[in-house]
Amino acid sequence: MNIGILGTEMVAKTIAGKLSSLGHSVKLGTRDVKATLARSENDKAGGPPVRTWLESHPKVTLGTFAEAAAHGEIVVNALSGQFALAGLSLAGEGALAGKILVDITNPLDFSKGMPPSLTVSNTDSLGEQIQRALPKTKVVKTLNTVNAFLMVDPAQLKGGDHSMFVAGDDAEAKAEVTRILKDWFGWKDVIDLGGIAMSRGTEMWLPLWVRLWGALKTPMFNLKIVR
Amino acid sequence: MNIGILGTEMVAKTIAGKLSSLGHSVKLGTRDVKATLARSENDKAGGPPVRTWLESHPKVTLGTFAEAAAHGEIVVNALSGQFALAGLSLAGEGALAGKILVDITNPLDFSKGMPPSLTVSNTDSLGEQIQRALPKTKVVKTLNTVNAFLMVDPAQLKGGDHSMFVAGDDAEAKAEVTRILKDWFGWKDVIDLGGIAMSRGTEMWLPLWVRLWGALKTPMFNLKIVR
Repeated sequence: MNIGILGTEMVAKTIAGKLSSLGHSVKLGTRDVKATLARSENDKAGGPPVRTWLESHPKVTLGTFAEAAAHGEIVVNALSGQFALAGLSLAGEGALAGKILVDITNPLDFSKGMPPSLTVSNTDSLGEQIQRALPKTKVVKTLNTVNAFLMVDPAQLKGGDHSMFVAGDDAEAKAEVTRILKDWFGWKDVIDLGGIAMSRGTEMWLPLWVRLWGALKTPMFNLKIVR
Repeated sequence: MNIGILGTEMVAKTIAGKLSSLGHSVKLGTRDVKATLARSENDKAGGPPVRTWLESHPKVTLGTFAEAAAHGEIVVNALSGQFALAGLSLAGEGALAGKILVDITNPLDFSKGMPPSLTVSNTDSLGEQIQRALPKTKVVKTLNTVNAFLMVDPAQLKGGDHSMFVAGDDAEAKAEVTRILKDWFGWKDVIDLGGIAMSRGTEMWLPLWVRLWGALKTPMFNLKIVR
């Protein structure tokens, strides 16, 4: 399948690497291709610069946000929360119309120090803001509740015995994303929370997630909904 | 031990019944004892009126907020979020000074319909507000992440194989509450998140909790932190 991934940071590269290894045609999207390729410093998470990473993943291509969105039959929003709406706007409402947008971002605000707060929460969510900005796109919120390495390989933690959520207004899109989570990534327990407004629930899990990261001293954990 | 419990709704009665069954001297606190005893309707969760409940729990006594606070060597705040600060003010800063206050409330706002939003979140929390209002009291936030029946008997769900959190500024008070959670109630996995500001994390879990309640159609679930 042709997949566009918006973003070039650690989460975007981790998902791109996994999807490419499964045989999919992946294009990463960035604001300014030349500037992104010129960067020689590691990414924020300590991963290699995009140029170096692309050399070790020769099947993955890099384009503008608009080119990545046009490339994808499904598009993944892996931008950081603060850039998500601007990046999606550059990708273009038209290029995203009718498509599934897998939204894995969190509206984290690091400007007031650690642990981060949220830029939107409680009575609205980034998932809803994105769906409102792209009414013709089928936004499915998922994967925002775990570390990038767990997103694409949940089995590395206790054999995958933990939970993932999906939320979105389009039932068929949610079913397709659930199939991808299970068949491609290996998620076993995927809970359908309901419409895209349910993004409030999973985005507001992040304040507990970041505190647990501090208490457990590792990001390699997840919640299992015991019932 | 003498324990004061502020509140007379389902959560307060469930905890009072458990502590009384363990042999502790429990006093429930309410705003107006006469009015509370005069009520004949069931509580909001469908449980019996206080008068009827006290008849079946003859060792538990009822008093004002101030009397319950004075009675307790440890005091439990089981008021609903919207009344918590007012109720604690009536209990009295003096009666609570030097004591552990186990804060199990959530700042849920049902005024805008279901699912509820939070009256305070993100950059502050009810746990912090209570600690600021009662600077001489050792506030420990816990138990606010589960249904009342699970609070006092976690083993009824998968043998207790799920997680609980504590947050508070006083290390000794947290250790004492952790001992109570484990030895009296049967919690096995109690995670110390840090200071009382970490209440933001567990209170912001509630928006996901209420959505899971809707999706799973039962409140008898909990999260297990898999790591």
